[in-house]
Amino acid sequence: MKAGILLSGCGLGDGTQIEEVMLTYLSLDKYGIDYITFAPNEMQHDVIDHYTEKPQNEKRNILIESARIGRGKICDIREVSCKDIDAIIIPGGLGVFKNLSTFIVDKKSFTVNKNVDDLLKAMYLSKKSIAGICGAVILIAKSLSQHVSDLKVATANDAYGELLSELNVNAVNCSAKECVIDRKKQSSNYPRISGIQKNGRNYGGY
Amino acid sequence: MKAGILLSGCGLGDGTQIEEVMLTYLSLDKYGIDYITFAPNEMQHDVIDHYTEKPQNEKRNILIESARIGRGKICDIREVSCKDIDAIIIPGGLGVFKNLSTFIVDKKSFTVNKNVDDLLKAMYLSKKSIAGICGAVILIAKSLSQHVSDLKVATANDAYGELLSELNVNAVNCSAKECVIDRKKQSSNYPRISGIQKNGRNYGGY
Repeated sequence: MKAGILLSGCGLGDGTQIEEVMLTYLSLDKYGIDYITFAPNEMQHDVIDHYTEKPQNEKRNILIESARIGRGKICDIREVSCKDIDAIIIPGGLGVFKNLSTFIVDKKSFTVNKNVDDLLKAMYLSKKSIAGICGAVILIAKSLSQHVSDLKVATANDAYGELLSELNVNAVNCSAKECVIDRKKQSSNYPRISGIQKNGRNYGGY
Repeated sequence: MKAGILLSGCGLGDGTQIEEVMLTYLSLDKYGIDYITFAPNEMQHDVIDHYTEKPQNEKRNILIESARIGRGKICDIREVSCKDIDAIIIPGGLGVFKNLSTFIVDKKSFTVNKNVDDLLKAMYLSKKSIAGICGAVILIAKSLSQHVSDLKVATANDAYGELLSELNVNAVNCSAKECVIDRKKQSSNYPRISGIQKNGRNYGGY
């Protein structure tokens, strides 16, 4: 079995949530599941100074920054076909809203990056597994909403509740130690593995 | 007990090895040990494109980039005193050679960043614990060499053997699942937690 992990940069504020990626690798390695990583070869929506938490006047490329957490085996999403992987996993972080979709700008009328959208739909139609962590749930809901109704996904504290409901998605509240699996629709969702928090002890099963 | 984790950027090629930092946090959280993170507020030696593995024509600040993996509680190393922490942990990555010391340029005649050097010496003299992962061992060896002889440190495949021997350090070869602890000298060293590798299953105790 081979998993594909879709990255959106390197860092919670403008890319992928790094803890969520590392714990995903750790889990896959623990169970002996091989994986590849990939990201769009496009410019980031913005660059955030993670010290001041303010925007920086810089330009960075999603693929190049993702490579910092790509474990030496990252490629352009355009090189990845649904045939190459048995499951796709999308970690969270603001990159999901900024770099993999237009959510940060367009809110409810957002669109998903075309390469991401095509891959998610192909994965679903090929009956392969799709997993999302934290905000990645909105990409999955949006891309699959044309094909499925009443898809069960996880949310924490009703995040994106109205949006998910408009997308005909059944959002189930759960804690950081739980996840929601919709076996019929090959989808599993985790509200979050770990956020930035002062005394963070929030690592799901770890 | 409070640990201090010294970062040197965000990414193996020009900063801290991210896996080593995340697994350090995971271990500390597992045992309920609180921690702070800090880094020099200085410019990086260089910026490496982790996709092509070649230098990029950019300038980045060590503290700002480290903040991407600083868990929202990072500060300038100049704000940290030996009194604030009970142990210091230095993860690996080329940032150790490029940003925390001049090793990348000066090789054997390298010097350790003054703030880092001062903190390491103060920690040692206050009988507090010092831990290094991978290449961080050379910083510890260099800073403590004025005060101790025959300090036991870990190495893998005789890395930095000649240098460590010149520093009067007793380098003990060990595997990624082992570490070397010199209780008398409050020092523990891990050859590495995890490098970039194709089928990486190299996470020490995890």
